[in-house]
Amino acid sequence: MSMPDAMPLPGVGEELKQAKEIEDAEKYSFMATVTKAPKKQIQFADDMQEFTKFPTKTGRRSLSRSISQSSTDSYSSAASYTDSSDDEVSPREKQQTNSKGSSNFCVKNIKQAEFGRREIEIAEQDMSALISLRKRAQGEKPLAGAKIVGCTHITAQTAVLIETLCALGAQCRWSACNIYSTQNEVAAALAEAGVAVFAWKGESEDDFWWCIDRCVNMDGWQANMLTWFLFVFVTSSLFRLYQLSKAGKLCVPAMNVNDSVTKQKFDNLYCCRESILDGLKRTTDVMFGGKQVVVCGYGEVGKGCCAALKALGAIVYITEIDPICALQACMDGFRVVKLNEVIRQVDVVITCTGNKNVVTREHLDRMKNSCIVCNMGHSNTEIDVTSLRTPELTWERVRSQVDHVIWPDGKRVVLLAEGRLLNLSCSTVPTFVLSITATTQALALIELYNAPEGRYKQDVYLLPKKMDEYVASLHLPSFDAHLTELTDDQAKYLGLNKNGPFKPNYYRY
Amino acid sequence: MSMPDAMPLPGVGEELKQAKEIEDAEKYSFMATVTKAPKKQIQFADDMQEFTKFPTKTGRRSLSRSISQSSTDSYSSAASYTDSSDDEVSPREKQQTNSKGSSNFCVKNIKQAEFGRREIEIAEQDMSALISLRKRAQGEKPLAGAKIVGCTHITAQTAVLIETLCALGAQCRWSACNIYSTQNEVAAALAEAGVAVFAWKGESEDDFWWCIDRCVNMDGWQANMLTWFLFVFVTSSLFRLYQLSKAGKLCVPAMNVNDSVTKQKFDNLYCCRESILDGLKRTTDVMFGGKQVVVCGYGEVGKGCCAALKALGAIVYITEIDPICALQACMDGFRVVKLNEVIRQVDVVITCTGNKNVVTREHLDRMKNSCIVCNMGHSNTEIDVTSLRTPELTWERVRSQVDHVIWPDGKRVVLLAEGRLLNLSCSTVPTFVLSITATTQALALIELYNAPEGRYKQDVYLLPKKMDEYVASLHLPSFDAHLTELTDDQAKYLGLNKNGPFKPNYYRY
Amino acid sequence: MSMPDAMPLPGVGEELKQAKEIEDAEKYSFMATVTKAPKKQIQFADDMQEFTKFPTKTGRRSLSRSISQSSTDSYSSAASYTDSSDDEVSPREKQQTNSKGSSNFCVKNIKQAEFGRREIEIAEQDMSALISLRKRAQGEKPLAGAKIVGCTHITAQTAVLIETLCALGAQCRWSACNIYSTQNEVAAALAEAGVAVFAWKGESEDDFWWCIDRCVNMDGWQANMLTWFLFVFVTSSLFRLYQLSKAGKLCVPAMNVNDSVTKQKFDNLYCCRESILDGLKRTTDVMFGGKQVVVCGYGEVGKGCCAALKALGAIVYITEIDPICALQACMDGFRVVKLNEVIRQVDVVITCTGNKNVVTREHLDRMKNSCIVCNMGHSNTEIDVTSLRTPELTWERVRSQVDHVIWPDGKRVVLLAEGRLLNLSCSTVPTFVLSITATTQALALIELYNAPEGRYKQDVYLLPKKMDEYVASLHLPSFDAHLTELTDDQAKYLGLNKNGPFKPNYYRY
Amino acid sequence: MSMPDAMPLPGVGEELKQAKEIEDAEKYSFMATVTKAPKKQIQFADDMQEFTKFPTKTGRRSLSRSISQSSTDSYSSAASYTDSSDDEVSPREKQQTNSKGSSNFCVKNIKQAEFGRREIEIAEQDMSALISLRKRAQGEKPLAGAKIVGCTHITAQTAVLIETLCALGAQCRWSACNIYSTQNEVAAALAEAGVAVFAWKGESEDDFWWCIDRCVNMDGWQANMLTWFLFVFVTSSLFRLYQLSKAGKLCVPAMNVNDSVTKQKFDNLYCCRESILDGLKRTTDVMFGGKQVVVCGYGEVGKGCCAALKALGAIVYITEIDPICALQACMDGFRVVKLNEVIRQVDVVITCTGNKNVVTREHLDRMKNSCIVCNMGHSNTEIDVTSLRTPELTWERVRSQVDHVIWPDGKRVVLLAEGRLLNLSCSTVPTFVLSITATTQALALIELYNAPEGRYKQDVYLLPKKMDEYVASLHLPSFDAHLTELTDDQAKYLGLNKNGPFKPNYYRY
Repeated sequence: MSMPDAMPLPGVGEELKQAKEIEDAEKYSFMATVTKAPKKQIQFADDMQEFTKFPTKTGRRSLSRSISQSSTDSYSSAASYTDSSDDEVSPREKQQTNSKGSSNFCVKNIKQAEFGRREIEIAEQDMSALISLRKRAQGEKPLAGAKIVGCTHITAQTAVLIETLCALGAQCRWSACNIYSTQNEVAAALAEAGVAVFAWKGESEDDFWWCIDRCVNMDGWQANMLTWFLFVFVTSSLFRLYQLSKAGKLCVPAMNVNDSVTKQKFDNLYCCRESILDGLKRTTDVMFGGKQVVVCGYGEVGKGCCAALKALGAIVYITEIDPICALQACMDGFRVVKLNEVIRQVDVVITCTGNKNVVTREHLDRMKNSCIVCNMGHSNTEIDVTSLRTPELTWERVRSQVDHVIWPDGKRVVLLAEGRLLNLSCSTVPTFVLSITATTQALALIELYNAPEGRYKQDVYLLPKKMDEYVASLHLPSFDAHLTELTDDQAKYLGLNKNGPFKPNYYRY
Repeated sequence: MSMPDAMPLPGVGEELKQAKEIEDAEKYSFMATVTKAPKKQIQFADDMQEFTKFPTKTGRRSLSRSISQSSTDSYSSAASYTDSSDDEVSPREKQQTNSKGSSNFCVKNIKQAEFGRREIEIAEQDMSALISLRKRAQGEKPLAGAKIVGCTHITAQTAVLIETLCALGAQCRWSACNIYSTQNEVAAALAEAGVAVFAWKGESEDDFWWCIDRCVNMDGWQANMLTWFLFVFVTSSLFRLYQLSKAGKLCVPAMNVNDSVTKQKFDNLYCCRESILDGLKRTTDVMFGGKQVVVCGYGEVGKGCCAALKALGAIVYITEIDPICALQACMDGFRVVKLNEVIRQVDVVITCTGNKNVVTREHLDRMKNSCIVCNMGHSNTEIDVTSLRTPELTWERVRSQVDHVIWPDGKRVVLLAEGRLLNLSCSTVPTFVLSITATTQALALIELYNAPEGRYKQDVYLLPKKMDEYVASLHLPSFDAHLTELTDDQAKYLGLNKNGPFKPNYYRY
Repeated sequence: MSMPDAMPLPGVGEELKQAKEIEDAEKYSFMATVTKAPKKQIQFADDMQEFTKFPTKTGRRSLSRSISQSSTDSYSSAASYTDSSDDEVSPREKQQTNSKGSSNFCVKNIKQAEFGRREIEIAEQDMSALISLRKRAQGEKPLAGAKIVGCTHITAQTAVLIETLCALGAQCRWSACNIYSTQNEVAAALAEAGVAVFAWKGESEDDFWWCIDRCVNMDGWQANMLTWFLFVFVTSSLFRLYQLSKAGKLCVPAMNVNDSVTKQKFDNLYCCRESILDGLKRTTDVMFGGKQVVVCGYGEVGKGCCAALKALGAIVYITEIDPICALQACMDGFRVVKLNEVIRQVDVVITCTGNKNVVTREHLDRMKNSCIVCNMGHSNTEIDVTSLRTPELTWERVRSQVDHVIWPDGKRVVLLAEGRLLNLSCSTVPTFVLSITATTQALALIELYNAPEGRYKQDVYLLPKKMDEYVASLHLPSFDAHLTELTDDQAKYLGLNKNGPFKPNYYRY
Repeated sequence: MSMPDAMPLPGVGEELKQAKEIEDAEKYSFMATVTKAPKKQIQFADDMQEFTKFPTKTGRRSLSRSISQSSTDSYSSAASYTDSSDDEVSPREKQQTNSKGSSNFCVKNIKQAEFGRREIEIAEQDMSALISLRKRAQGEKPLAGAKIVGCTHITAQTAVLIETLCALGAQCRWSACNIYSTQNEVAAALAEAGVAVFAWKGESEDDFWWCIDRCVNMDGWQANMLTWFLFVFVTSSLFRLYQLSKAGKLCVPAMNVNDSVTKQKFDNLYCCRESILDGLKRTTDVMFGGKQVVVCGYGEVGKGCCAALKALGAIVYITEIDPICALQACMDGFRVVKLNEVIRQVDVVITCTGNKNVVTREHLDRMKNSCIVCNMGHSNTEIDVTSLRTPELTWERVRSQVDHVIWPDGKRVVLLAEGRLLNLSCSTVPTFVLSITATTQALALIELYNAPEGRYKQDVYLLPKKMDEYVASLHLPSFDAHLTELTDDQAKYLGLNKNGPFKPNYYRY
C-alpha cells in the first residue's frame, strides 16, 4: 500500500466513527490520546485543572509517587547511564546554554547531549516507520505552524517522535509525565537540538509542575495561537478522557489512539509476550521450564503472557470472569480455574485483569514457599499489597524491585515491583512497539491539525481504520514484508477500494 | 455464570445494536441467520423468491451444483454408511410410515432409523451445551407454538439442534440445503422421531425444490400462523441477507448469528486449525514436517491454518492485502510475501482469502512437481480451476477428491476437491464447534420468537454480547472450566454488572 | 555431503561397532533388520523355523490374526481400491501371466497392474531419496548377483524399495508379512514388472505360508547360491533377533537397522507427531482444542504424540517410570502424574510405553463418559482389553476400528482399534518416513552384500554412523536444504573428516 | 524412585562403562569433571602442572584473560552488589577474621557475609534436590574424611554445593576459576561459615595462582592424606581431560560428569532455550516477533535457541554440517541454508557450533545495518572478531557487552560480548540447572570417594546411567511430579529392575 505521492496524508475525516460507546469505553483505560486545542486563547490553567483533577482524587502527591516508583527502573539498559548523581545542584538553579546559544530548556546537564544523541540514534534504527513518515512528509511540512506541548516519559523513543514532529514543521515544548523516568542524556540531546524540554530524572513534585508550567506558559511563545496538548502514557494511564467528554467539559476534539488495532494488539498482546519473560528473568532469574503459573485474566495482556510462558515450557492456568475469554483459554490449551483451586501449587502468580484485589491476603497466605507474585495488568491495584503491611510479616528487599515477604513460619513470597506493573518497572518495552504507538500519534496529530473546520467536534474519536492500516503499512518494511495488491477485478468482486480500508470497523483481527 | 432459575432466557432486546455497517458487512459473507416471519399470512413464495433470486444470478442449477459438489464427501466418517445405493427407487415414489404410523416425511429409507439414532447419540455427547440448554428450558417451552421451517445440511449435529427446538416446544419441518449432504440414516431417525423431514442424499434439482416446497406448504400445517425460516450454512454461504435489507425487501427481522464472537473464532480460527491437517492427511497422506506452505490470507481462517501447520513443523509463508493482518503475520513469525516470490518452491498452496482468482493459471504453471493446491476460504472461486481445463493438461483422478493435473512435461499438480472448500469436502467439522453454532442459533430463535412487538424491525441484527457470553458459558463445563465471579466491590470498580456483559461491543478478543 | 562419484558406496565396515549391549537392546523391540544368508546351501526351513518359533509361543494362528486385524485399514486411502472382492476365486487357483508372458508370481488380479503402477508412481514422488540412490548406483549395480527374498507389507512404498533393489542388480522374490495388508493393485504392478511376488489381500493362514514357501523354494532359482532374507516390519515387530544371536543360533550376520538415528527419530518422534492426530480424527472426529489427554510414556513415541497434541491446544499429562524422561516432560511443560490422579478427568488416554497392562480394568472403570482410549506404543498389550470382555459390559461397534464399551450405568468408553496400534490401524504413515526406512535398508543390504569376507560375523550389527548420515543427506534435497561444508581448517580444528562421521556414536541428537 | 533408606548411595561401580570413545569424546569439550587423588602423597605441583600445561599453549595469561573477560558480567543480578570497589586494599594485604575467630580464608570483605548468606539462601530455594541430598545423607556423612579442593566460579549456587559437601562430612578448600566471576559477598559468607575460601572479584593473575596455591598447600591441612581436585567449569571448559588419560598422564580416576544425560539436556538444550532470550534482551532490548534469525549449528545448544526464538515469533534459519542434525532441523520446521544465502537479510546471527570462524569477515561485511551477532556455542572462536579489528572499521561501545562496529558507509553491526559466550556474559543461568550439575558432581564425588579399591582405574569414566536417573529423581519434587512404579509383573515383562536403570546406555532421550 503505497502512500499517495500527493499529500495530504490520508484524509480520513469522513470515515471517522464517533466513539459512541463511552459507557463501555470508560471501563477500559486508554493510554495515548491526542487533542486539539481551540484556536482562540484558551484558559489553559482551567484545562489543566480538568486534567489534573482526576489525579487529585488520590492526591497529587500519591499520583506522582506511584508513577515515579513504578518507573524507577524502567528503560533500565539505558537508565543506568543517568545514575551519576554526583551533581547535587538543581537544574532549576543552573545556567545552561546549548551550542547554539539557546537556554530555552531545563535539563540535568547539557553536556550529556552527545551520549543522548547516540541513544536516540540507536532507537531510530528500530523506528524506521517513523523515520519513513518523517522523510515522506518532510517536504510538505504538514505540521507547519503547529505548536505542540507534550508531556510524556522522556526517553530515546519519545525523542524520535518529538524530532519527527519538529521535522514536519511543528514547534514543540516538552515536559516529563513522571518524575523519575527521564533519561537525562536524551533530554540533553533534545535541548541541544533546539527542543524546549523541561525535565530531569528525580524531579521533586514542585519541579514537576514547574516544568509543565514552563512548557505551557512560555513568554516568548505564541501559545495561544495554536496549542496542542499531547498526553502519551506509554504503557498505562490513570486518566479517563471520556469522563471529561461525558461531562461536557472537553473543549477540544480528542482522538483515542489507544483503541487502534495496531496499538492494542502490539502494545498488549505482542509486547506482553515479550516483556513477561524479560521482567521475570531480570528480577528473579527464574527458570520457566516446568513452572506452574496462574495468569489472572485472558484478555490481550493475559494472552500475550500465556503464549510466551507456554512456549517456554511453563504449565499455565487461567482465571477469568468472562466466559468468552474463558472459552478461548480452553481452546488454546489452558485450564480455566478459580484462583483458590491452584493457589497452593503454583510457582508464579501473574495478574492481567485491570481489576482490583484479584490477589488477596487470603491467597497470599496460602501460596507456597518461594511463590513469585507480580502484576502485568493495570495500575497497582490488582494485588492487595497493602494487606501485606502487617506486623507479623517481615519484608526483605533482596534486590531492586524484589521483596521477600516472610511469614512467621519462614515461608517467603517473592513480590515484584511491589505490585506495580512488572513490564514498566522491570523490563524494557521493545522500541519497535513504541514506534507503532508513536507513528499513530504523529498521524493523529497531523489529521487533527489539518482537518477542515467542523470535521471534529468536542468529542473523543476513534482512529479511522484507514489510518490504522497506514501505520501498519509503514512498519512492514522492517520485516521485509511484501503486500499483495488487489487487481481491479478482485477489488470489484470484494467491493473494496484497492487502497483500503480492507475491513469493517468491527472486524476483530 | 449461572443462568437464572427463573426464565425467560436473557432478555437482550434493549441492548441490541443495529448492524449499521451494512456496506462493510456485505463484503463478508455470513453463514448462519435466523429470521422471524411476519405474523400475518406471508407470501412465502415471494419470500422464497427473494431468497432464491440471488443464486439465480449464476443460475439455480449452478448453485445447487456447486454446493452439492463441494459437499459430496463431507462428514465422511459417517457418510460412508449412506453409500449403499442399491435402492434405485426415488423416495418420492415410496410409501413409508414410521413406527407411530406417520408418513409426514420423505426420506431414503425409514428402516435406517436405528442406525441414525446412534449417530445422533454420538453427536449429543459432544454437544452437551445444547443438551444443557434443552434441559434448562424444557419445562418452560419457550418455543411453544413456534412453527419452524429449516433448510440445512441434515447431519447428526443438525439433528441435535432440530430435536432441541422440538423439545423446547417448536414444531419443525426440515429440508436439505444441499442435494448430496444428507445423512440418510439421520433423516430416517428424525422421521421416526416425528420430525417432518424431506431430504435424502442424491436429490435431483427438482427433488431439492420439491422438498423445500413440501416443507413450507404443507396442507395439514398452519404454516401461516407463525413461520420461521432458518438458513444454516454450516461453513459457507452464497447468500447476502444484508442486500435484501438494504433494498428494503427484508420483510422480517433477522439476526446475523455469524458475526458472533464464538461463531467467528470457533468456526474459523479454531475449526480451521483442526481441519486443515485433517483435510490434507485424508486426501494426500502428506507429511507436514519441513513442508514449505504458502497460505494466502491471514484472517481468522488463515490464522487457524497457519497455527496448525507451523505447530507440526511446516514452514509457512503468507500473502496478504491488508497491512494490519500482514503485520500480525510478521509478529507471529511468518514471512509475508507475494505469491510469485515463493510459488516455485512451495510444496502446498492454501487459499483463505474470500477473494477470487488468487491462484491463477500463471501461478499453477510455475508450481513445482507434486505441489498440492487447495482452498480453505470461500466458495470455489479462489483457485482459477477453470483455467486448468485446457487441452494440453491431463486430469487424472487419483483418489476421491484428489486430481493430478499433468503438464506436458510430466509435472503434476495435486488439486484437492477441485478447488472447493477442503474442510467441507475432505475433512469433518468437530461436533463441538457445530454445537456452538447450533446453540447460538437456538438462542437467537428463542429471542426473536419471544421478543415483544416492536423490539425488532425489518432489519438485520447482530447477536447481543450477553447472548454470546451465555453461549460460551454453556460450553465451559465440557472443559471442566470454572469461571471466577466478580465481587460486588470489583463489579463496582469496573462498572460492570456481575452477570455481564463483560466487554464493550467493539472488543476484539 | 556429496556422494563420491566413484563408487563403491561408503565403506563402513571398519567403523562398525558391534552391538554389545544385547541385554539392553532386547528390551527394545526393533523393527527392521537385514540379514545375510550364508554362502553355502542353507537349510532355509530350519532358519525359518527359528524365525517362526517365537510367534508360536502364542500360536502361529493368533500371530497372523493379530497382525492382520491391526492392519485391516492401514494405508486406507489407497486400500480402498482393493475392496472389490467380487472375485471369489483363490489366486492360487488362477492361471495368470503378465504382458511379457511370465507367470512367475501369484497375485489377486494381474489386470490391476496399471492402477497399482500409478500408486507406485505417487509414492515415488515422496521417496526421492530412494530414487536418487537408484540413479546413483544404477550403473554400478552393487547388488548384481544378489538374490533377495523379502517378506513385508506389500504397499506402494515397499514396491519402490523392491524396484530399487532390482534396479541395483538384485533378483527379488517377495511375499507378504501380513494376510490383510497387501495392496492387490501394487502386487499386480510388481508382477507385471517382473518381480516374483506372491501375495494378496485376504490370504488364509495356509496361503500365507504357501506364499513364503513359493518365495524361498523356487525351482528355477539358484536360491542357494546367494540368498538374502529381509524382514521389514514397518512399524512394529514381534520378533527379537538378538535372542537368536544370544542363543548362538544366528547363522548369518544381521544389521539392526532399527536403532539408526534417522529410523528412530523419524519413525518414532516425527511419525507419531503426525499420525496421532490423524488416527484420532479419522476414528472419532474429536476436537483437540482444550481436551485433557494423558499420555502414558514419554519416550520418542510419547514425545511425538505430546508435541502434536499440545500444539493443537490439548492439555497433556504424562505418566512415566523413568525419572530422566519424567524430568524432560516437566521441562517441556507437561505435568507428570500417576494415572490414577487424572483418570477421572481426562478425555483421552494414549499409551506409548512398550509395557503391558498400563491401562487396567480399574482405570477403565473410573474413566468418565465418552473417554477415548487408544494405544500408540507396542503390540496390543498396553491396554488390558481382555478385562473388558465381561458380561456386564456391552460392546458396540460404532464405526470401523471404533468400539463403544458400555457400562451398566450407561457410561461409554470409546476404544480404538481394540487396543492395537492406532497409527498402524487407523492412520497412514507418511511416505517420506517410509522412504527413510527403505533407504536405510537398501544401504544395509548393499553393505552386507559387498562387505569383504570376515567383516561381519554371525552377530547383530548396528548401522554405522556414516551410513546413517548418508541416508539423511539423501533426504535433504526434498526440503531444499543446503548443507554447509567444513573448511580444511575447521575440519582440522574439530578433528573431523570433512565427509563425516560428524558425531561420536553415543551422541544423543 | 525412592532412595534406599540404608545407604550407601547407589553402588554403581559394576555398571560403569569405560569411556572408550576417547577419540570421539575429545572432539567435544566437556565441562564438569571430578577426579580422585591418589592416596599416597601426591606431587600436587606436578599434577597441577599437567592441568595447567594445556592452557599455556596459548599462554597462561591469555587463558585467564579470556575466561575473565567472558565472565565479567555473569550473574549480573547479584553481581551488581559487588561493585562497591571503593576499597582499594588488596585482600592479600588485609587481616580478617570471621566471627568465630578463624582467618583461614582470603576474601574481599568478611563483613559482607550477611548479604552473601541471603544470596545463598535464595539459591537454596531453587536447589532443593541438593538440599534433599544433603538431608538424606547427612546422618551417614558419606564424605567424612574427604578433603576436597575446589576451583570454580564462586557464586551463590556453587556455595550451596560446597556447603552440601561440608554437610556430608568433607573438608573443603576453594578458589576461583576466574579472576572476575567471584561474588564477593558469597565468598564472605562461605568464609564466615568456616570454608577456607580464597577468592575475590578482580584478582590479578598473580592473585589467581596464589589463591590456588593457598587452597592446595595449606600448612595446617593434611592435604596429602586424601586430596580431591574438583574442576567445575560451569558452562564451558578449555580443558580436555581425555588428553591426559590418552597420554597416560592421568594419575587418578576421573568421572566425566558432563556427558550425563541430565547435564547435557539441561545445561544445553533447556538452559539455552531460556538464556538466549535473556541474553539478547538484556543487551539489545530487541523485539523477537518477526525477526529473521540464522542459527549456526543445530546441536543441543542450537535446538534450545531455535525452540525459544521460534516460540516467540522469530523466523529462524539453520546452518549445519551434519546431515542428521540438518534433517532434524527440517522436520522441526526450519529452513537449512548456507550462511551466505541469508546473511544479507537476517536481523540476528547466532553461532552454536563449537567450531571456529563460522562467521567470517566476509559474512560481517555483507550483513545489513543493525544486524546483531553473538555466540552461544563454544569459547570465543566462532565469530572471527579479530578480523573486525581493522582501521577502516570504528568500534563504539554503546552499552556494557555491546559494541557497534561501524563500516565506512555508516552500516553498524551490533556485536555482543565481543564474540564470547552470550549466556555466560550477558544473562544468568537458571539456578535449577546449576542444581542438576551440582547434584551430579556431589554424587560423583561420593561414588569415587566410597568406591572400593580397584573399581576405578586411572581413566575417565562416564556417569553410570543409574546415577543419572537418581539425580533426575531428586529434581522431580520441584515440579510436583509423580513417578509411576513398575509392578513386579511389568518389570518382569520388560526385563527391568524396578529401580532402574530403565534404559540402555545408548538410549538417545
